[in-house]
Amino acid sequence: MIEIERKFLVKSDAFKDKAYKKIAILQGFLNTHPNRTVRVRIKGEKAYLTVKGKTNKEGLTRFEWEKEIKKTDAHSLIDLCEPGIIDKTRYLVKSGKHTFEVDEFFGDNQGLMVAEVELKSETEDFEKPDWLGREVTGDVKYYNSQLSKKPFKKWED
Amino acid sequence: MIEIERKFLVKSDAFKDKAYKKIAILQGFLNTHPNRTVRVRIKGEKAYLTVKGKTNKEGLTRFEWEKEIKKTDAHSLIDLCEPGIIDKTRYLVKSGKHTFEVDEFFGDNQGLMVAEVELKSETEDFEKPDWLGREVTGDVKYYNSQLSKKPFKKWED
Repeated sequence: MIEIERKFLVKSDAFKDKAYKKIAILQGFLNTHPNRTVRVRIKGEKAYLTVKGKTNKEGLTRFEWEKEIKKTDAHSLIDLCEPGIIDKTRYLVKSGKHTFEVDEFFGDNQGLMVAEVELKSETEDFEKPDWLGREVTGDVKYYNSQLSKKPFKKWED
Repeated sequence: MIEIERKFLVKSDAFKDKAYKKIAILQGFLNTHPNRTVRVRIKGEKAYLTVKGKTNKEGLTRFEWEKEIKKTDAHSLIDLCEPGIIDKTRYLVKSGKHTFEVDEFFGDNQGLMVAEVELKSETEDFEKPDWLGREVTGDVKYYNSQLSKKPFKKWED
């Protein structure tokens, strides 16, 4: 499956009052190579293994394969992951016909909030909420795989 | 699950006449890091994703987690793998109470044949067939993950 996602910074936490769902996410990476990431994720009561390919030139489309796994297996696999486990809360917020996934990070990425919206095509339009900041689609340092290697707290600018 | 395996070289192809099963295997690696390998394998008509942890000091036990996946998915995932896809035929050969898995490699690993036996404990005894050669348990260069990076044809000794 190819996914088209656009990613934005978040200017305020006004999105929290508008969220219809809130989910705890714990995740690690078995590989963070830009050509093939392998992610283990515990999302609420479920767990998944996800393989993503290289992002295309525009930073919009990427091969993605996901399989549900047992939560207990996921914990064992997270123990094997590269250093830099990511701990975040995901808020789901409706905006017009679309749903934004807004991630608030903890631990070494505390202070970072990122919103993503999934689109059907690279040109599809969508309503921009007030709290939505600068677009960072395709900026590798905001990839979770990179946040686990070089967390927000260690950024210089 | 922890597996205990001992690995040997193979002196002749006499094992082929004794095999009760022969399976084509095509596999690639999404990660070949010694602490966490992620393997995609197509084995006959089935396919699997397998994560292995670091081998213990003696080279005998290793964390292993495996999940069956769709064969079509496996082909897409193999396309994402690191260079060095492994193509081999596996022969299953009984020896006393045990079964040897003997792999004959093709492509860049042509000429290499390796036999493995799975044991219940690190001290369990087993019958050694005539065709069984030197033990190479724990020798990293015989790991499939390493054969995909540095194939048999490129070995100097």
